[in-house]
Amino acid sequence: MRSCLVTGGAGVIGSFLVKRLLLDSTVNVIDDLSSGELSHLDDVLGGQNIKFKKGTVTNQNDLLEMMRGTDTVFHLAANGDVRYRPDKPNDMDLNINTIGTYNVLEGMRKLDISNLIFSSTSSVYGLADIIPTPESYGPLYPESLYGSSKLAAEGLISAYSSLYGIKASIFRFANIVAPITRTIGKNVIPDFIDKLRATPDKLLILGDGNQRKSYLYVEDCIDGMLYLYRKQTRKVDLFNLGTVDTITVNEIADIIMAEMKLTNAKKEYTGGKIGWKGDVPLTFLDISKSKKFGWSPKHNSAESVRLSARGLLAGGSY
Amino acid sequence: MRSCLVTGGAGVIGSFLVKRLLLDSTVNVIDDLSSGELSHLDDVLGGQNIKFKKGTVTNQNDLLEMMRGTDTVFHLAANGDVRYRPDKPNDMDLNINTIGTYNVLEGMRKLDISNLIFSSTSSVYGLADIIPTPESYGPLYPESLYGSSKLAAEGLISAYSSLYGIKASIFRFANIVAPITRTIGKNVIPDFIDKLRATPDKLLILGDGNQRKSYLYVEDCIDGMLYLYRKQTRKVDLFNLGTVDTITVNEIADIIMAEMKLTNAKKEYTGGKIGWKGDVPLTFLDISKSKKFGWSPKHNSAESVRLSARGLLAGGSY
Repeated sequence: MRSCLVTGGAGVIGSFLVKRLLLDSTVNVIDDLSSGELSHLDDVLGGQNIKFKKGTVTNQNDLLEMMRGTDTVFHLAANGDVRYRPDKPNDMDLNINTIGTYNVLEGMRKLDISNLIFSSTSSVYGLADIIPTPESYGPLYPESLYGSSKLAAEGLISAYSSLYGIKASIFRFANIVAPITRTIGKNVIPDFIDKLRATPDKLLILGDGNQRKSYLYVEDCIDGMLYLYRKQTRKVDLFNLGTVDTITVNEIADIIMAEMKLTNAKKEYTGGKIGWKGDVPLTFLDISKSKKFGWSPKHNSAESVRLSARGLLAGGSY
Repeated sequence: MRSCLVTGGAGVIGSFLVKRLLLDSTVNVIDDLSSGELSHLDDVLGGQNIKFKKGTVTNQNDLLEMMRGTDTVFHLAANGDVRYRPDKPNDMDLNINTIGTYNVLEGMRKLDISNLIFSSTSSVYGLADIIPTPESYGPLYPESLYGSSKLAAEGLISAYSSLYGIKASIFRFANIVAPITRTIGKNVIPDFIDKLRATPDKLLILGDGNQRKSYLYVEDCIDGMLYLYRKQTRKVDLFNLGTVDTITVNEIADIIMAEMKLTNAKKEYTGGKIGWKGDVPLTFLDISKSKKFGWSPKHNSAESVRLSARGLLAGGSY
């Protein structure tokens, strides 16, 4: 039976992944619960094949303890608040995402674990001038500290793969959406739901609402990771995971207002082409490579958003 | 008068750069002298336009002290020993090259300094399958901790440039050679000279001697940095700096044996396609972009090696 460690396993993607892995594996979970929530694992915690520890990837001992005896590491733990904020220390992404990944790799080296699946991000592409953007795009000029910290993690994984024979899949995620949410660093869907619940007659949209991105449903994301890791031929490989289309923030607002039967709410805008410092107005990943390997998402962006909104409105069950 | 900080300014490239900058600027130098040498600056130290501090980029206070009052930062300080060695801590490149660059950027943010020139490396390309390799090559799979730490630094610079308006040039260096050397992490030329001086009848070559790379003379490298920084149009831009040709390690051996009049020395080999773990058998940068901006190196690889060897054999004077 495969034995996995999932870092960030109480997060939105992590908790879905943990439940999927439990179908045929034992699973250790480490999460500092800073943005993940233990309640996401309520229905599986206490089972005999899962072990949970509240701990952080910035602590090598926490990691080693939970890594011992596993053969495959899914490294999803990260500072989940992608946005730049003046009140956030500038070294938070560096510490959690970059040095955290270094700690994961050192743990794997010490314990001779040689399978790694890593969640990177479309943010590494910055303001790419090729849209949709393929994995081969370069040079990379990330706009955000988050994007730069994930690019750094990718490089570390590549070097460790070469030096220590670790098989590694790196996935550059589009916006992953789900019928559950985290408490901080919420994405646009729960953010709009919260706002409309508070003031049903209006909706404040960051930027001009024309920011255009692709949104991948969490189950599609997990299918992609598990499938492509099995199929890859390089020792370290890298795949975009997204949908074949994009939608605008305005369209997301329309979907959510329709689901909430609040189509008369007035949209208001903070203005500008981006929602926050370090945001990009257009993200669209070319997923031809992943498709060539045999993976395709089951849902397009609008469906992913609608499914997620419905689940959230129904109270996060799924 | 421009006022510059040069980190790593007692190093091989750094000391040449400092002397060039002194022609029209005041220069602060910070160097921890771990691989750089104060003697490289002997002929300029004590002048009224240069200030030197033995300090490290891993210490924010050292940096802030030397950065204060400058308007342009040349960030060259790095762990200069590119090779993987089991006795070297795996976090050395991370600490010095990645976190060191973070410290430089934080210092620039705090002191509102908005001009940065950074030395990256061809090692970010790993085993590229497009040769010569353009800046646009991707995805990047660095083979070494050194390469990954420099890729991480590039990403940080890009994010800081976007968030804080820093104008930045990133230069991916080929092998830079010079008529002076450092004490640790010596490149192939002083290494061969040392070996032939110790045992003039034989020369031990790492790998099979067919590793093929391009070698850029230090003066050409500095011309390129200064010229391209002035010419770039993007806020953050990235240029390969190399020559338009390559030579093999065997050809370098021949040049040095000829310069030392030891053409009968027997070449011996450690074997294998690479010289050390994390090495790559072929590095060749496409410098079309730099040429399009108007820069070309004055010397080819063989001339760069010969000039360097002559300088070293003459006792490091130039």
